[in-house]
Amino acid sequence: MSGHTVSSFDDELNHIDRLIRDMGDLASSMVADATRSLLQAQEASAQRVISDDVVMDARQRELDERAITLIAKRQPMAQDLRAVVAAIRIAADLERIGDLAKNIAKRVGSVDAGTIKTPLSHSIEAMSKLVLDQINNVITYYVTRNAEGLVSLREADELIDIKYTSVFRELLTYMMEDPRKISACTHLLFCAKNLERIGDHVTNVAENAFYVITGEQLPAHRPKVDETASV
Amino acid sequence: MSGHTVSSFDDELNHIDRLIRDMGDLASSMVADATRSLLQAQEASAQRVISDDVVMDARQRELDERAITLIAKRQPMAQDLRAVVAAIRIAADLERIGDLAKNIAKRVGSVDAGTIKTPLSHSIEAMSKLVLDQINNVITYYVTRNAEGLVSLREADELIDIKYTSVFRELLTYMMEDPRKISACTHLLFCAKNLERIGDHVTNVAENAFYVITGEQLPAHRPKVDETASV
Repeated sequence: MSGHTVSSFDDELNHIDRLIRDMGDLASSMVADATRSLLQAQEASAQRVISDDVVMDARQRELDERAITLIAKRQPMAQDLRAVVAAIRIAADLERIGDLAKNIAKRVGSVDAGTIKTPLSHSIEAMSKLVLDQINNVITYYVTRNAEGLVSLREADELIDIKYTSVFRELLTYMMEDPRKISACTHLLFCAKNLERIGDHVTNVAENAFYVITGEQLPAHRPKVDETASV
Repeated sequence: MSGHTVSSFDDELNHIDRLIRDMGDLASSMVADATRSLLQAQEASAQRVISDDVVMDARQRELDERAITLIAKRQPMAQDLRAVVAAIRIAADLERIGDLAKNIAKRVGSVDAGTIKTPLSHSIEAMSKLVLDQINNVITYYVTRNAEGLVSLREADELIDIKYTSVFRELLTYMMEDPRKISACTHLLFCAKNLERIGDHVTNVAENAFYVITGEQLPAHRPKVDETASV
């Protein structure tokens, strides 16, 4: 990433990195706001998350445009080229995180506050807290070029999967106890699943970021994705 | 895509197109096999879908590798560069379709044949049939450079969304009727949701393919994604 004779390649790559940081910050606030809107049944703030997704999409398009223009103009050699392609991929995962936060926000109207009992609320909040830490950490580690930090994120993702499995079982119990809550609980199930998928996208970002920093691949396969799919 | 003085650029782009067609064929058979395994509770064939996903991942890596090497070696100008970047994106969506088919296959063991009554089985089968048509069509339209065909796929995706909403409601009814089926039905809910998401990925492929053929963007936003999220 350094040592180019044409310094503007690095300048442009730095600009792309700033866009990634902006997208990461937006992804983080969208996930935090979507979860809070859900747990407190606040439709107005849910609506803001839905609008934020338009901003997210625009940022991704801007990043893509800049990245492709950079490749076309500077014609970077293999290693730099891979860094730019990795940036395009990271942006795509961050955009998907925004989509998933939006999907949580869209479900707020289908879940009335009464459905979410205190223990369930704590479980979902704890899960969302883990996911937020992951998003914030992956961006920090990418920006500060911390390869070891990135490796640690994959282990942290397993905690999210475990938490998801426990929320999944909790929700099944609520549904069996009170069939009138089945509809609301299925929406909560999708919200929990969305948080778990956000964790997977963070892992993808970590893999691409690791590659940018080290030039090496993390193994392509993660230990598992969704424990509930096989139990 | 034609008229290059260096004919090997086109040769290499054709090779990438062949890889996309192969990935599309594999995606299609994975979705068909996963749905059949689910509806007939066949764990052995579900296991094959799970193995197929390893092949899918390998094909995506091969395509990525070739595409990046092609850019680095040939340094294509803007329009050709965008075609190669679009191919990378199309491959990423096809790989995601494979992941979602695998996720359906992983749920086969959690849903015993008795849970799926005939009307529900017909609904899921009909949904899967619509999704399969979309996958097969998007690949055909991409390979034959049929821009109008690609536009028509976005409308067809709305039929999948409508079908998903109806399967979603059907499943809620079954859960309310018989709480012992709640666990199996939530797995079926995720399977139906996966089919709906596969439809979204086909739409992404159509957008990227349209861009390759026409050099123009289809509008970024689709009419809607999941009707059940807002009802």
